[in-house]
Amino acid sequence: MKFKIKPLAALMTVLASLTMISCSKQYTFVKSPDGNISLRFATNDEGKPLYSVEYKGQMLVVPSELGLELYGAPALSGGFSVKNVLKNTFDETWEMPWGEQRKVRNYHNEMTVVLREKSDPHREMHLIFRAYNDGVAFRYHIPHMAGSDSLFVAEEHSHFRLAGDHTCWWVPGDWDINEHLYNKTLFSQIDAISKRNHPNLAQTYIPHNAVNTPITMRTAEGLHLSFHEAGLMDYAAMTLEVKPEDQSMKTILVGSENRPYKVSHALPFSSPWRMIQISPDAAGLIASRLILNLNEPNQLGDVSWVKPTKYVGIWWEMHLGKSEWSYSRTAGGPPHGRHGATTKNAKHYIDFAASNNIGALLIEGWNTGWENWIGTANREGIFDFVTPYPDFDMAEVVRYAQEKGVQLIMHHETSAAVSTYEKQIDTAFRLMEHFGYQMLKTGYVGTIIPKGEYHHNQRMIRHYVNVLKKAAMHKVAVNSHESMMPTGLRRTLPNDISCENLRGQEFNAWASDGGNPPSHLPTIAFTRMLAGPIDYTPGIFNIKFNEYKPNNQVNTTMAQQLALYVVIYSPIQMAADLPEHYEGHPAFQFIRDVGVDWEQSLVLNGEVGEFVTIARQERGSGNWFLGSITNEEARQLSINTSFLEPGNKWQAIIYADGPNAHWNDNPTSIVIDTLEVDNSSTITLDLKPGGGAAISFKPI
Amino acid sequence: MKFKIKPLAALMTVLASLTMISCSKQYTFVKSPDGNISLRFATNDEGKPLYSVEYKGQMLVVPSELGLELYGAPALSGGFSVKNVLKNTFDETWEMPWGEQRKVRNYHNEMTVVLREKSDPHREMHLIFRAYNDGVAFRYHIPHMAGSDSLFVAEEHSHFRLAGDHTCWWVPGDWDINEHLYNKTLFSQIDAISKRNHPNLAQTYIPHNAVNTPITMRTAEGLHLSFHEAGLMDYAAMTLEVKPEDQSMKTILVGSENRPYKVSHALPFSSPWRMIQISPDAAGLIASRLILNLNEPNQLGDVSWVKPTKYVGIWWEMHLGKSEWSYSRTAGGPPHGRHGATTKNAKHYIDFAASNNIGALLIEGWNTGWENWIGTANREGIFDFVTPYPDFDMAEVVRYAQEKGVQLIMHHETSAAVSTYEKQIDTAFRLMEHFGYQMLKTGYVGTIIPKGEYHHNQRMIRHYVNVLKKAAMHKVAVNSHESMMPTGLRRTLPNDISCENLRGQEFNAWASDGGNPPSHLPTIAFTRMLAGPIDYTPGIFNIKFNEYKPNNQVNTTMAQQLALYVVIYSPIQMAADLPEHYEGHPAFQFIRDVGVDWEQSLVLNGEVGEFVTIARQERGSGNWFLGSITNEEARQLSINTSFLEPGNKWQAIIYADGPNAHWNDNPTSIVIDTLEVDNSSTITLDLKPGGGAAISFKPI
Repeated sequence: MKFKIKPLAALMTVLASLTMISCSKQYTFVKSPDGNISLRFATNDEGKPLYSVEYKGQMLVVPSELGLELYGAPALSGGFSVKNVLKNTFDETWEMPWGEQRKVRNYHNEMTVVLREKSDPHREMHLIFRAYNDGVAFRYHIPHMAGSDSLFVAEEHSHFRLAGDHTCWWVPGDWDINEHLYNKTLFSQIDAISKRNHPNLAQTYIPHNAVNTPITMRTAEGLHLSFHEAGLMDYAAMTLEVKPEDQSMKTILVGSENRPYKVSHALPFSSPWRMIQISPDAAGLIASRLILNLNEPNQLGDVSWVKPTKYVGIWWEMHLGKSEWSYSRTAGGPPHGRHGATTKNAKHYIDFAASNNIGALLIEGWNTGWENWIGTANREGIFDFVTPYPDFDMAEVVRYAQEKGVQLIMHHETSAAVSTYEKQIDTAFRLMEHFGYQMLKTGYVGTIIPKGEYHHNQRMIRHYVNVLKKAAMHKVAVNSHESMMPTGLRRTLPNDISCENLRGQEFNAWASDGGNPPSHLPTIAFTRMLAGPIDYTPGIFNIKFNEYKPNNQVNTTMAQQLALYVVIYSPIQMAADLPEHYEGHPAFQFIRDVGVDWEQSLVLNGEVGEFVTIARQERGSGNWFLGSITNEEARQLSINTSFLEPGNKWQAIIYADGPNAHWNDNPTSIVIDTLEVDNSSTITLDLKPGGGAAISFKPI
Repeated sequence: MKFKIKPLAALMTVLASLTMISCSKQYTFVKSPDGNISLRFATNDEGKPLYSVEYKGQMLVVPSELGLELYGAPALSGGFSVKNVLKNTFDETWEMPWGEQRKVRNYHNEMTVVLREKSDPHREMHLIFRAYNDGVAFRYHIPHMAGSDSLFVAEEHSHFRLAGDHTCWWVPGDWDINEHLYNKTLFSQIDAISKRNHPNLAQTYIPHNAVNTPITMRTAEGLHLSFHEAGLMDYAAMTLEVKPEDQSMKTILVGSENRPYKVSHALPFSSPWRMIQISPDAAGLIASRLILNLNEPNQLGDVSWVKPTKYVGIWWEMHLGKSEWSYSRTAGGPPHGRHGATTKNAKHYIDFAASNNIGALLIEGWNTGWENWIGTANREGIFDFVTPYPDFDMAEVVRYAQEKGVQLIMHHETSAAVSTYEKQIDTAFRLMEHFGYQMLKTGYVGTIIPKGEYHHNQRMIRHYVNVLKKAAMHKVAVNSHESMMPTGLRRTLPNDISCENLRGQEFNAWASDGGNPPSHLPTIAFTRMLAGPIDYTPGIFNIKFNEYKPNNQVNTTMAQQLALYVVIYSPIQMAADLPEHYEGHPAFQFIRDVGVDWEQSLVLNGEVGEFVTIARQERGSGNWFLGSITNEEARQLSINTSFLEPGNKWQAIIYADGPNAHWNDNPTSIVIDTLEVDNSSTITLDLKPGGGAAISFKPI
């Protein structure tokens, strides 16, 4: 089934387009400001709401039903008539306190369709549609209802009926984790069930043949689409059930074993946005700020205390097995001598950070509890987030870090014992405030306690958002791991500084399936990264680490590890490897130099899962940095430096794969070249298999 | 005139060889331990002492006269008979406290010819000859004489009659300075007089068509020779007068306008050694430690306070004109605001050194006097070496440097007002001791005061040696500029840590003749460097420095600047450029890493004035570093890594010229490559015009 219509003339033929919405009784539409994207709405004979999406006259989403199944009340899904249609054009430019760019234009046309049940009790449901130049979105809004102050959503039935069997990059609809590898298949070949029981996941639950979002697609015509949600603050995360039989997807919300509904909410109530990014090329997906424009403006006011920074961590050494999170073999037992988070080791990292233009240090394993944190049936009360191990003198480490100008990053691993964390959190934040911590990494490894909850259900979404709000009151920025896929909340709560929610670098240290393949990050850039900043923890120089884990390795070249600082966006970027693997390596200069906060970002080229090149200009310095990565395939990319300000000469330092570099055979071969360029130069990047290139540009 | 004889049979035909020493009455010989070099002695009919040198049966020095012309007494040059001949074999291995290598084998055969005048007063003169595998040497020894306790040498008449019109690399026999470019001509074309009146020399005096030593030669057969002296402690420096008419050189000692003799000395008395290095290839000249073996062993005992180090300096910024040595325009006047040696600037350099594995800081212009230091007729009393300028708080700078673990290098610019310096020196050393200075740079810019003395005459040689001895009493190492050509004294006085005595880097900042050409350092390595450590002050990254001196530049590539840290030996090596030219440059890692004190050194290849490659293993770490430089010609050199310990894998970081690098057109194009090698690897160095390559090897 494939729909195609000719581009509409300036004076649109409404009757002609009408025929496209089958059986529609009423219709209306909204177009993107540039006119390329058209979003239509109609109700069918049964009063079911239907929407469709076209791009330059080509159907992308064929008429698809919308509706909410309620608990304790009839569904809001049919028998509607259109009571009113409100249209609005919105155009503002807002400033990101930190981000991929400083100024963001939010320019869209909005259409609110007020539906009213034709029969008693004549409940109303608003559908709000927005058309941007880079995509469309809609949300449900339920106004006050007579005789009811709350809504219980048993399921959301938003459909996305595709106009073709597109190539898709997808992860399974896991209610508990987003740390799957992306799969590339035709839509008709998506099989999420086959991804159950992954051996390297501490928790995983895939109840349906569904996908987690973002899911990115490429049409036969080369259009790129990505489906996700925006503004998820008090709702269940959305999975998209895949129905190959009619080429459609349908929302299935993440639920709980403890409640017969998936979402409860006081009225009035607005759902998160369901969003489709639309771009003629892959690069456009990354350049889009649609997800941010769909979120509410900053609610925290002055967030100058949220400071983008590079950081090091007592972290990779534990993943490699050089040291351990725990202090002893059994809680309260004698020290085993391999504890990583010691005062001495912390000072060593602080010295290293201070000497190398790295602003912060994450210390994991500083607090008691790590002897029993996983593999224990009852994980309640294991961590208290305030009691350090005997060999970690927090006051002294804090004093030393302040003396050296290095910020400390607090670590709260909850082991998914959420009730324990919620009981302790105020005390934990008071400790942080006492010692001046302004950044926090949270972790949620394991199945959620209380049992029956899932990482992505409404109970947990509320938790993550509450932690962010509480942190904001203490002027703390949060980097969450094993939490929720970002949905652009960082606009509203700019202390939501980064998160994981992908298969991160640490899988390379121990995953039994060979780690992250070279195609992983060229895929991530066009999928997970569309959701928001990623704490991927790049920069591994000791690629093979045979002295620690002879059967594991990072599956990229060293040059790609550098490129990731630019390609994979995060305002906090770890220099993840051990100091001894950086000391003395000339390529470390790139990590010293590279920025973390950007005036502007340009996606210069890319294809999903294959390669991508991004250039970003640092705020303040005006320096430019460029990163380019490829999958298993070597390729030459020609880069035009027209993004540089004209008139200036620039020193370009190019960190490239060596002539025989290869992610597996020769990953650490790196060539550093310096040259003088201006804004009319051409640089040819010679990316080797699993390779990359990183460039810094400074004005001369 | 060319002598050639066939290799001698094992049972040497004495009569046959006898014919080679014309008119000789008595003869004897000494051979090198490997038998390749033969040094013969005879007296002729007039009782004149004659010596000759052969290498593998080929005559290198044809019979040449020896003798001393005395003041107030008849010459010691003829009428001798051989009273006795003493022969001795010597073989020891001694250890250098710091140096190009740890162990040095001193293995030679020695022959002392005791001459006695046939007629009254029957004075005796000993000629001591030594034959090493890498060259020959001789010296005069005058024993006690009846009725005389001193000797006044008006001239030394040691002849070197060459066996061919060799290709020579020479500098003029300047009594006041060694900072000439080397010239390459046939011996018959040497014209030192043409080098008079150099516009860029603060003092120069070239009275004869003579050369300063070392002078290096290549024979038509490809043998390499270098003539110099060793053990110059209380004598005048030697120049070699060039007599093209009979292909001979003859010593002319550097004299004084104030005395009718050139050397005075109590009896008994030994002259410095006159030394000829002999090597089948150019590389062998550099590998030779002949000059050290000819010097006396360490007289200072424990010299652990002499610490090889890298250093930075408030120095290049003055040569560039970014700042000035002086504080004001006239002595005692108001500050002009451009003074370089301020407390603040010193701290800036200390911070930079401390962050970059650089152990010391030289501060020039810290003391009063720079307003009148040159261009003033009477330079006596201008400097006092203890009074800092008002903006230099020595106590605070010392305190800060100690806190940061950075050693300070004192600077005594005497402006060649030697009497002033000698009056002040005890006070100056007391100040140094008070503040813990353990290294001193001296300078002797200008014509010597008292007038009529020259930088290289006995008066000044005594001065330089006395400064070294006085410094040793205060545990201070001395790096002297505009002083005497080194003659291996560092073995005897290991606080003689480095010196200049060549056309250094600073000529590139301001010389009106275009600076040092690309052939300069490939020549220096086989000439000046044979004399001893060179404080060349390498490492200029900002090659063209157009913002300061648009008409000057360094005439090498950046990669060659790195290679110099290995090629040009000095136990103190400056990172000469401004911190801001290093900050952020990945190639700076080589300077951070490179060693200064060596377990062993290997000269892998080279031709005088063309190219040279040296590998050195660092003491302590065992890391290897390699430097390779070329002249104007690009060339590819294949390097075998067999010097690396077998069994290990090594990380090699190669700092090479970029593909289009060129000393003039594109000097800062540098490529840094990392690879894994073992001791059977081959690395091809692709040196560009005026270029180079530097490699660090660390065990994995």
